[in-house]
Amino acid sequence: MRIAIDAMGGDHAPAEIVKGCLQAASHTEAELILVGDYQRIMDEINRSGSSYDPVKIRIVHAGETIENSDSPVRAARSKPDSSMVRAVELVKSGEADAALSAGNTGALMAAGLLRLGRIKGVERPAIVSIYPLIGQEKAFSLLVDAGANAECKAGNLLGFAHMGSIYMKSAFGVDSPTVGLINIGTEETKGTTQLKEAYQFLKKSGLNFIGNVEGRDVPVGAADVLVCDGFTGNVVLKLTEGMAWTILKTIKKRFTQDIVAKLGAAILSGKIKELKKEFDYSTYGAAPILGIRGLVFKMHGSSSATAVENSIVKAAVVASGDLPGQIRRAMALYAGAEEELESDDE
Amino acid sequence: MRIAIDAMGGDHAPAEIVKGCLQAASHTEAELILVGDYQRIMDEINRSGSSYDPVKIRIVHAGETIENSDSPVRAARSKPDSSMVRAVELVKSGEADAALSAGNTGALMAAGLLRLGRIKGVERPAIVSIYPLIGQEKAFSLLVDAGANAECKAGNLLGFAHMGSIYMKSAFGVDSPTVGLINIGTEETKGTTQLKEAYQFLKKSGLNFIGNVEGRDVPVGAADVLVCDGFTGNVVLKLTEGMAWTILKTIKKRFTQDIVAKLGAAILSGKIKELKKEFDYSTYGAAPILGIRGLVFKMHGSSSATAVENSIVKAAVVASGDLPGQIRRAMALYAGAEEELESDDE
Repeated sequence: MRIAIDAMGGDHAPAEIVKGCLQAASHTEAELILVGDYQRIMDEINRSGSSYDPVKIRIVHAGETIENSDSPVRAARSKPDSSMVRAVELVKSGEADAALSAGNTGALMAAGLLRLGRIKGVERPAIVSIYPLIGQEKAFSLLVDAGANAECKAGNLLGFAHMGSIYMKSAFGVDSPTVGLINIGTEETKGTTQLKEAYQFLKKSGLNFIGNVEGRDVPVGAADVLVCDGFTGNVVLKLTEGMAWTILKTIKKRFTQDIVAKLGAAILSGKIKELKKEFDYSTYGAAPILGIRGLVFKMHGSSSATAVENSIVKAAVVASGDLPGQIRRAMALYAGAEEELESDDE
Repeated sequence: MRIAIDAMGGDHAPAEIVKGCLQAASHTEAELILVGDYQRIMDEINRSGSSYDPVKIRIVHAGETIENSDSPVRAARSKPDSSMVRAVELVKSGEADAALSAGNTGALMAAGLLRLGRIKGVERPAIVSIYPLIGQEKAFSLLVDAGANAECKAGNLLGFAHMGSIYMKSAFGVDSPTVGLINIGTEETKGTTQLKEAYQFLKKSGLNFIGNVEGRDVPVGAADVLVCDGFTGNVVLKLTEGMAWTILKTIKKRFTQDIVAKLGAAILSGKIKELKKEFDYSTYGAAPILGIRGLVFKMHGSSSATAVENSIVKAAVVASGDLPGQIRRAMALYAGAEEELESDDE
């Protein structure tokens, strides 16, 4: 098992990426391939003071970096020597079983699509994201699409529901996961033209569709898989993060306003720490781009070393299965194209 | 000053609506007109035990009720004797200066449009909503559109920005309010086709446009006026509510888990109460439908008596100005149609 990591992508790259790799190396069987500026990666390794096993961690030099401000498709095409594109190339050539990046989401999607191609039957690949739940029985929901496709047709949303359900089962062992459509009302007549049509598709999909899910029911884990276009997904994820961050900050401010409050806060410090941990988006690691012919994972842009470490471990677990194959078979089955499936199967 | 209130709309109607009216009656100059089932309203008044001054509170009977499950436009047309349509009619006939309802948002919008009509120059009326901020210097942002127009063109978004800015100034005294466009990135090339176009319109609008606002910057009050389509607005509002509610519930659960935690929580009870108050969406009252020829306010569906009371007080303040006239003049000015304005002005 080999995992390629874009060392240069993300808000805290390369420092946190390299540190996360060193941390992961000690407790994963996988061989790690750090892709990026050789000198800067070596500097980070030396700075960390960690032991570095060149058999466990290999460095592949890449002379360019894709920035967040780069135009996604253009960057994926015009920067073939970028750390991100090189990492994806390693999956294509079979030198890596999965690639990870915390960089430009659109560019990662474009690189995955251009270099690895789309799975037969998938109209639009999507980015899945873990949506952590606070104080609920289940720990998270899956959100698809988390930002790759700002504008979607009803058929795209149906595809996201299928792929999300497969990922929920294969990566987390949830049988027949519930699927909800993010919408502005629970009635099937609510929302945009696309959402009304998607509702009808989902009803007949054979998936465990529970109907529309309103914004207020997202944080209570109304469905295992939450389906939406990438615009809505991006807003939902970032708003949730912003809310959690804002509320925690306000609690901290209020609870340290005076000496009496400080005493109460000291008594509650254990509970407050537990609460903070529930807010922590990094514990679940990266999530894959669903629908392309290979495993490419997107890590959170502001991933810390621990988030990178968790992402690598998660990617290794997923890579030990056959997610692209499962998606391909499900899509073929859904299209009723069983004959194609047979001739296509390796 | 006379304010008409739909007594039958909302999750807690008519009980909380009637109670809120009785509370408001004691400290507003306005004459209140409760519209709905006469007997049920009288029952609620008697049940409340409050003193009831028939000069201050008048009851107008309406035999029908528009339900949340009703199709908005159909209901507004086919239920002329509903409490909601009757309340709006009172504004049209000049018997009331403003109408308030906590009922079906779409139907209220339709009733307003059908009975009062659109202001010249306004393509699409919008619902404005108060977005309360937690732990920030400013207390709230204004969100337009909060749910009336699920699908929008770029020109509609520009209209929302103009109307929102006018309301922010006239109702809250904020000069040159900052305007932000809710989007999935800060760069002007981000988002859907409509949003990219809207960005360009806003840049040249003469408004105090500060650019795109991402989901994570919404809770910190990145702009005074947040512009988005009604789908996004609905999701943002409901998700924020859901998050606040979920986090408060989790805090309560954790802080009462054991005797030591309970002690800490007891010490912090004042601070926790202050925090809860910041979460309270009802303190700011109702918000108007912008762009129609009259004042129609939407109250939150689950409005408590206090929320209704605050809404009535707010509506009376706004009704003492000339919001529809201000919007009409601004739209005419923007369209460069000063000559039309003059011939049109009463």
